[in-house]
Amino acid sequence: MSTWGERLRLSIFGGSHSRAIGVTMEGLPAGEFLHWEQVLIQMRRRAPGQDKTATPRKESDLPDILSGIDENYMLTGDPVSACIYNGNQHSKDYESLRHTPRPGHADYPAYIKYHGKNDIRGGGHFSGRLTAPLVFAGAVCRQLLERRGIVIGAHVLSVGGVPDQQFDPVSVTPDELRRLSAHYFPVLSAGVKREMTERITEARSCGDSLGGVVECAVLGLPVGLGTHMFGGVENVLSSILFGIPAVKGIEFGKGFRVAEMTGSENNDSYCYDENGQLCTETNHSGGVLGGMANGMPLVFRLAFKPTPSIATAQPTVNLQAQTNVQIAIKGRHDPCIVPRAAPAVEAAAAVAVCELMLREGRLS
Amino acid sequence: MSTWGERLRLSIFGGSHSRAIGVTMEGLPAGEFLHWEQVLIQMRRRAPGQDKTATPRKESDLPDILSGIDENYMLTGDPVSACIYNGNQHSKDYESLRHTPRPGHADYPAYIKYHGKNDIRGGGHFSGRLTAPLVFAGAVCRQLLERRGIVIGAHVLSVGGVPDQQFDPVSVTPDELRRLSAHYFPVLSAGVKREMTERITEARSCGDSLGGVVECAVLGLPVGLGTHMFGGVENVLSSILFGIPAVKGIEFGKGFRVAEMTGSENNDSYCYDENGQLCTETNHSGGVLGGMANGMPLVFRLAFKPTPSIATAQPTVNLQAQTNVQIAIKGRHDPCIVPRAAPAVEAAAAVAVCELMLREGRLS
Amino acid sequence: MSTWGERLRLSIFGGSHSRAIGVTMEGLPAGEFLHWEQVLIQMRRRAPGQDKTATPRKESDLPDILSGIDENYMLTGDPVSACIYNGNQHSKDYESLRHTPRPGHADYPAYIKYHGKNDIRGGGHFSGRLTAPLVFAGAVCRQLLERRGIVIGAHVLSVGGVPDQQFDPVSVTPDELRRLSAHYFPVLSAGVKREMTERITEARSCGDSLGGVVECAVLGLPVGLGTHMFGGVENVLSSILFGIPAVKGIEFGKGFRVAEMTGSENNDSYCYDENGQLCTETNHSGGVLGGMANGMPLVFRLAFKPTPSIATAQPTVNLQAQTNVQIAIKGRHDPCIVPRAAPAVEAAAAVAVCELMLREGRLS
Amino acid sequence: MSTWGERLRLSIFGGSHSRAIGVTMEGLPAGEFLHWEQVLIQMRRRAPGQDKTATPRKESDLPDILSGIDENYMLTGDPVSACIYNGNQHSKDYESLRHTPRPGHADYPAYIKYHGKNDIRGGGHFSGRLTAPLVFAGAVCRQLLERRGIVIGAHVLSVGGVPDQQFDPVSVTPDELRRLSAHYFPVLSAGVKREMTERITEARSCGDSLGGVVECAVLGLPVGLGTHMFGGVENVLSSILFGIPAVKGIEFGKGFRVAEMTGSENNDSYCYDENGQLCTETNHSGGVLGGMANGMPLVFRLAFKPTPSIATAQPTVNLQAQTNVQIAIKGRHDPCIVPRAAPAVEAAAAVAVCELMLREGRLS
Repeated sequence: MSTWGERLRLSIFGGSHSRAIGVTMEGLPAGEFLHWEQVLIQMRRRAPGQDKTATPRKESDLPDILSGIDENYMLTGDPVSACIYNGNQHSKDYESLRHTPRPGHADYPAYIKYHGKNDIRGGGHFSGRLTAPLVFAGAVCRQLLERRGIVIGAHVLSVGGVPDQQFDPVSVTPDELRRLSAHYFPVLSAGVKREMTERITEARSCGDSLGGVVECAVLGLPVGLGTHMFGGVENVLSSILFGIPAVKGIEFGKGFRVAEMTGSENNDSYCYDENGQLCTETNHSGGVLGGMANGMPLVFRLAFKPTPSIATAQPTVNLQAQTNVQIAIKGRHDPCIVPRAAPAVEAAAAVAVCELMLREGRLS
Repeated sequence: MSTWGERLRLSIFGGSHSRAIGVTMEGLPAGEFLHWEQVLIQMRRRAPGQDKTATPRKESDLPDILSGIDENYMLTGDPVSACIYNGNQHSKDYESLRHTPRPGHADYPAYIKYHGKNDIRGGGHFSGRLTAPLVFAGAVCRQLLERRGIVIGAHVLSVGGVPDQQFDPVSVTPDELRRLSAHYFPVLSAGVKREMTERITEARSCGDSLGGVVECAVLGLPVGLGTHMFGGVENVLSSILFGIPAVKGIEFGKGFRVAEMTGSENNDSYCYDENGQLCTETNHSGGVLGGMANGMPLVFRLAFKPTPSIATAQPTVNLQAQTNVQIAIKGRHDPCIVPRAAPAVEAAAAVAVCELMLREGRLS
Repeated sequence: MSTWGERLRLSIFGGSHSRAIGVTMEGLPAGEFLHWEQVLIQMRRRAPGQDKTATPRKESDLPDILSGIDENYMLTGDPVSACIYNGNQHSKDYESLRHTPRPGHADYPAYIKYHGKNDIRGGGHFSGRLTAPLVFAGAVCRQLLERRGIVIGAHVLSVGGVPDQQFDPVSVTPDELRRLSAHYFPVLSAGVKREMTERITEARSCGDSLGGVVECAVLGLPVGLGTHMFGGVENVLSSILFGIPAVKGIEFGKGFRVAEMTGSENNDSYCYDENGQLCTETNHSGGVLGGMANGMPLVFRLAFKPTPSIATAQPTVNLQAQTNVQIAIKGRHDPCIVPRAAPAVEAAAAVAVCELMLREGRLS
Repeated sequence: MSTWGERLRLSIFGGSHSRAIGVTMEGLPAGEFLHWEQVLIQMRRRAPGQDKTATPRKESDLPDILSGIDENYMLTGDPVSACIYNGNQHSKDYESLRHTPRPGHADYPAYIKYHGKNDIRGGGHFSGRLTAPLVFAGAVCRQLLERRGIVIGAHVLSVGGVPDQQFDPVSVTPDELRRLSAHYFPVLSAGVKREMTERITEARSCGDSLGGVVECAVLGLPVGLGTHMFGGVENVLSSILFGIPAVKGIEFGKGFRVAEMTGSENNDSYCYDENGQLCTETNHSGGVLGGMANGMPLVFRLAFKPTPSIATAQPTVNLQAQTNVQIAIKGRHDPCIVPRAAPAVEAAAAVAVCELMLREGRLS
């Protein structure tokens, strides 16, 4: 399902090797001006080919506005639609894979679901390339949010076991998030990026790949945003974030570590600070209580699995011949998608927050 | 938001201290007979007051069928609606809390969202009691699934740091799941339950509470169930599971541990086994690839935070007086909700799987 | 499908002869007080047994609040749920009909759809009795709208060919609508009700039934409410109004008569009146342009077919024996449901307008 | 709102003068082949400039496939997306209209809704040109339906008071519908088209415009398709059909004429015909009972208002100057859109029927 949202209705189209990929998005208020360069910065952060940690494929990823944004980059109130034309495709790389599912990929269940008829070139609609229109949508949404005091930023918390430091969940600042969200491969600790890069390069040279964790924070959410039960901040965010390929887990605040805490440790006590501002001294909840934002930074983490496409030979099957075979995946693949995933995480969060705001009439 | 689902439309109502709580559910096929006793078993597994690890509140939790199920317990095709009348309420316990938000609870954001007008008694609609109608809905759904070869079971994987063993993600059996889903406080390793219980009793006697992890498995999903992007098995499951109070994280298969694995380790290789059956030797993916079931057991884990209601005094504020105060929460609360949460997790999974099946015309 | 709405989520349950019928409704703002007596007035307007034009069945139709409304009749923000217990049922009247579909009823397609397993007693979930929970939902919604200057009223425009006068689409007043919506069998022209009643009594005595037209007006909609294409006022209203049994057509403003008008006749010219107020001299559009309210009264009409349950013998079939047979429908049926349909039309309109308002953040 | 559908998710984008208009559509089964020429026939039927009854604007309306359809015109299971690039635009025609709402157009409510910021050129997203992507979507859907025995056709039932004959609601044939749906300006009675054309030409020469009625029939719907209450065939169809600009009313079967019939006249009696086939001798219901298809032809009619754009001077206002002014609309407009609306009606019906089929797992 490539549509998402009730009030911010997103519809993503295209496959890795179709004529174009793109997105239509409806529900944003009219009359908002976009900084187009800011949109392009987000697109570039996700684009491949930036350094040795990523695939050498060149994709310009320049969004072509089809509707909803006028010549002054103002939202007109019509659905916003943009597409990115595909190019630089090596379609022949894929035909041999039709009956030989790549381990860790969608190939086998898709083969069964579509009776072998789906577009397998480049992963078709399952491709990570589909995060490009998502990043575009997020790039638009985040500008509207920023104007309303809501700032989003993510960093690579770990790659192949090399850890960055975590956000300080109480005192992370908007400027810190803005800095992270302006660059490719964002990290908090200056030194860690080099080590991560080395680890990725090493994995690539072994014909292997790495996974990692992305941590994201959102500042400025209005207290009370989100609802009980199924409309909670966690529900809405996770329902879009699992749409980013390779995500295998999501946790908010202390996440899985709450399982080993006691109530007296985990509860975030309230107090009025010296400025008479209500706050909590800790932020184990990650900014969400009962599905609703509580005014503290929203903090969550996503686990990304290692890219399944690896050069090393792997056992698999030929579904037609019903025999066991070996596969060594050719083509140009990211040895680790985590650095490029960070802007996609921010984008999905931006879209989800706009949806939550629109549901409650808080974005107009 | 207390509605969920597109094809299986769930609508939950009621608050902890309203006249009744209940659920309306539409979309199930007509003509299916229910084993009513099996429904009641699920209700009892979630009901409070079963042993010392749970709140001593007595709630009969007997569902009253309002419509959609006839006198022979057959689904008529009309919306299924059932309610549970509230009783045994100590409403006075709560009024003093109106301006004094309990740490770790929804109180503060709800106060802001509803301008202090929401029903705070017993947590109102934020109460864990609202999992009772969810368990009812799941109890109906799971019977339809079981008839189609789909079996769901969960166990308490850890409480306060005491671990149960994990499911064997490759060879977990339907009978194992059926055994777990027939009892209160289900665990895999016989011995571990006593230790967990002791830890919970200990926490209670200290005026404190514990969190834990629930692990759930689903067997028999048709290969290809679920879709790319936003209609994936993970998206749909997480969008309902975060509706269970106290859930702070969800992970599928290896979950957060994939972040430290390489592609060659994490990829589940395909092979035909001696019976010519396609399988994977490992199941790190937890049974989902590209959002779709791949035929292996679906395995996921949920982190539950410790019950926020604790007897120990905690710092908080008086929102009216704008002063810092202390709170010691009275009333009868579970020192650990994890044992009672297991059936709620199974129920939410059953509802989500029915939704996924209905979306693809696989349940009729 | 017994759910409706995106922001005002309605879920109706029950069948004519189930234990109860009712509705759950979520999305309304918290803190609004209801005049309960006004709710009951609406329930009574729809209730059967009021005069000779209606079925002599006695149904108290007293809504039992299950949740969402506190003891002071204030909305708490939780889902509003209410049910009406069924009673006074003659279930035996129906069993003989299982294989003998009544002409004009849902029986035959329901028999095929549900493989003969649906609850046919009293029409089950197809019964006109299901408009009772709809009227309840509308009775709540209209109070919130009235407080925001939006007034809804309907009248019986014709019954069996006896016409009432039409609304003046330019100058219909709130008081006129309030008067109509306070009574059973509302009409504009004092004299016409008696003639309509006679015509209905006459039809009944012949073992026959009559159809008619209900005309409804809504005043005070904010200019711009509704959207282009599929979110238009007409789309949203018609999607709920066709849920009232027996509706066979809907038209806005001049409706089908626009087909014979020229553009110069049909276009409503704009002008500033003596008070500098923008208005149109005519209101052929019925208050909607491009799917959006234009500030003039919203006016629409609904065609109701004659009650299909008639005492006169009719040809039909026995679906089991596959033979042609005759049927004479026993039981107590309305010879004309149009008078009782008027409050249901107003209610559905109130729900639809709340939905439209909520979608645009105009109701909070 | 430019999205529609739950299982067939349609998202339409573009404005009359944006770079492109188009549609993304998800939910159709993979592996179906399209006759591309049949798609183009539908696009041409709707395209302007075909004869003197239509606008002389030339628009190629050639859909450019962006994704979801492969080089053999097979559906791949990915979202189907297509766009039509805009060209031949006279944008200058419109700027003078910004503060001067055209009577009968969306201009005034859109001005208020969007604070004067929407794209007014050519009507922007309110333009009838947006029916082009709808016709494209319908052209795809109808091919899938035809293969499953479902045939759709519409004709111009009246223009400016000149009537065509109505469908015989009992015996209308698939071939009759196929003939109608292959041509521009479809009518049942050979002679009537000339008279209608003359009437339109006449209106144009007077600087005026005409309305009319389109009648549509759908054959082959499975008995039981659709649901009670809000998921009925009428609800679903009307919720999309009112998205076609200028529609002011819809009626099914006898429609508004049921208001003057008795139950014994209106009820369609069942019988087994000489071939043992169940049928009804009349079809006053138009093929829908209780929201469900009953196996008889589905027949409905839509009222279209006269094109509001007319050359004749009309009173209106200047919203900025707040003065009363006159307007004579320049530009090239259809004096009657009814002939070009017929394919849009068929298309919307095709989309709606696919949605209904998908909801019940009947299209896979």
